[in-house]
Amino acid sequence: MSAPKGLEGVVVNSTQISHVFGEEGRLVYRGYDIGQLAGKASYEEVCYLLWKGHLPTRSELDALNQAMRSQRTLPDEGATLRLLPKTVDPMDALRTGVSAVAAMLEISGTATYEQALAITARFPTIVAAFQRIRNGQEPIAPRSDLSHASNYLYMLTGDVPLENHVKSLDTYLVLLADHGMNASTFTARVIASTESDLGSCVVGAIGALKGPLHGGAPALVMNMLDEIGSAENIKPWVDNALDTHKKLMGFGHRVYKTTDPRAEILRDMARQSSTPEFFALANGTERYALDELHRRKPDQRLYTNVEFYSAAVLNSVGLPRDFYPPTFAISRVAGWTAHILEQMVGNRLIRPQSEYVGPQGLTFKPVDEREAVTA
Amino acid sequence: MSAPKGLEGVVVNSTQISHVFGEEGRLVYRGYDIGQLAGKASYEEVCYLLWKGHLPTRSELDALNQAMRSQRTLPDEGATLRLLPKTVDPMDALRTGVSAVAAMLEISGTATYEQALAITARFPTIVAAFQRIRNGQEPIAPRSDLSHASNYLYMLTGDVPLENHVKSLDTYLVLLADHGMNASTFTARVIASTESDLGSCVVGAIGALKGPLHGGAPALVMNMLDEIGSAENIKPWVDNALDTHKKLMGFGHRVYKTTDPRAEILRDMARQSSTPEFFALANGTERYALDELHRRKPDQRLYTNVEFYSAAVLNSVGLPRDFYPPTFAISRVAGWTAHILEQMVGNRLIRPQSEYVGPQGLTFKPVDEREAVTA
Repeated sequence: MSAPKGLEGVVVNSTQISHVFGEEGRLVYRGYDIGQLAGKASYEEVCYLLWKGHLPTRSELDALNQAMRSQRTLPDEGATLRLLPKTVDPMDALRTGVSAVAAMLEISGTATYEQALAITARFPTIVAAFQRIRNGQEPIAPRSDLSHASNYLYMLTGDVPLENHVKSLDTYLVLLADHGMNASTFTARVIASTESDLGSCVVGAIGALKGPLHGGAPALVMNMLDEIGSAENIKPWVDNALDTHKKLMGFGHRVYKTTDPRAEILRDMARQSSTPEFFALANGTERYALDELHRRKPDQRLYTNVEFYSAAVLNSVGLPRDFYPPTFAISRVAGWTAHILEQMVGNRLIRPQSEYVGPQGLTFKPVDEREAVTA
Repeated sequence: MSAPKGLEGVVVNSTQISHVFGEEGRLVYRGYDIGQLAGKASYEEVCYLLWKGHLPTRSELDALNQAMRSQRTLPDEGATLRLLPKTVDPMDALRTGVSAVAAMLEISGTATYEQALAITARFPTIVAAFQRIRNGQEPIAPRSDLSHASNYLYMLTGDVPLENHVKSLDTYLVLLADHGMNASTFTARVIASTESDLGSCVVGAIGALKGPLHGGAPALVMNMLDEIGSAENIKPWVDNALDTHKKLMGFGHRVYKTTDPRAEILRDMARQSSTPEFFALANGTERYALDELHRRKPDQRLYTNVEFYSAAVLNSVGLPRDFYPPTFAISRVAGWTAHILEQMVGNRLIRPQSEYVGPQGLTFKPVDEREAVTA
């Protein structure tokens, strides 16, 4: 059986964790439409939901918060990150930091809820510590009286963040926490299927999320908005881009064939945590670009994707552009770990086939008898 | 389209790099049956073959050797590895060490031959350095006058290894360097398909190889041979194991339905680098186990797999048991990187689908209104 390229449309497993109903523009986590959760449930509640299958009661949430908040520190206090050049991609720092932390915590054997929690709790600490270190500053110790979102922003600057920034970031973390069988989640499940440990699965998933075709491009939205610069320049800039067949960043998705429900909610978050000028620029660009895309390409179903307002939200809460992918990872690790736990139920090694299209029947010749091959 | 569990039998891509003809017991690298290469081509020649598509001429091989030998040192001189507890799984040390090295070398952008070479050249140095560090010894600097296999053994002990040990290990490295669309190679290709960097792909693949269903079980063969202990005990031990439905280690493979050609060649290597007593134990166990397996389960096509004599060979050259998986990785990184390079030609994001089998239409309730769920 030969699968379509990129496994497009191929159902590789069943899941109870999340699903993207692309035609309807719906994203469901464990039975809840994303609009039921965003702005109401905290990221921590959504972690519990994804891992355990139901929203926590008060006592379950208290226990979760206590466990996560007490496990935010790094066993090496950031020493591994200090060895890296300050210029490395923050995703490389996260990948290396998580690998080291997983090793130091000796995460091994069949994946557990406790391991998922221990790794998820430390993601913001690693990312924030690297930001401090690369700027020649000391990492800031986590504060156990702050939420996951709030403490992440706190560790970046040492200031308790504004309430509207925390709300926007927390909602972002909820919205990005899982998304069906995307490439990084699939990576985590392939690794898990070998019965490797949870840390190895998460480290592999970080590498996949780093790719610009998956999680690595939201900064390009900000670069585009920078180029546009002001509301008056939207029309000429977009017209020129489309006339010259330049790609507009932040539109279109392989799975969604209508509006991405996350984009709608992130738009509201961007509105409440951005300056009015910046929001006018972003929103004006979105509206004019959509109008023009639909007018020029009426047969293509192009809508605002999650990257567009992710960039706007993460910019509004003060994150540097190269921190958008690691902040995406801070959210998505909840989904990865939920899928790793699920993969372990009735697991079977994921070991596909390939079609061989190379030569056959060649005869070995010793090195001095070989002739040069010209490409 | 719904795929069989574990993607068994599903062709996910075409490749010119290698293929397993499972029914015929043949393994082909770039047109050469593995028996054409093993014992004749060095590991370095096979790296070139896998990466470039043809065996190197003398001048190409000289250039490759010079490039690999000059890139064996670690940019941090092992500092990252020193931060790990001495008790961590060597695969976790390799995963972390490679992630750090890839970051320090700032491996980014579209994967290149030079990057493949730079990472492959450093694998033995990372593994050997960790062995030294965990034993409280200083790492030994690589020697540029030794081959890849010889230098690896040298860096473990500081002694130039025996010629028959080098020959056995080099042949092992050739035999394990690639193997169609196995789980770690597939992991590397999924990550590469996001246009992530070569380092991220290799780090993910290490995590997959760590899993006992993929690369993580050869030590169990040695544990079994230890339990058997002597040639006289083979028959009673194997009889008892089969009577009590214990799994014999080192037999059977999802893809091969006849003898694994690598097992045949590794048997010869084990013969020439082991003590006569140990080889008699291993070979006697293999022969009696196969006879009994075929007698008791005539409908199952169970043959000696690569793990059985891999364990015997790696034991014979003096490697500790928990170093079998990282030594497997030292070989397989050639295949991973060849597949990453190939994936970049006409790449398409590998983004499958899943079937949602969870609930739908749930309504959010605030935390204090939720009822406890009993599992």
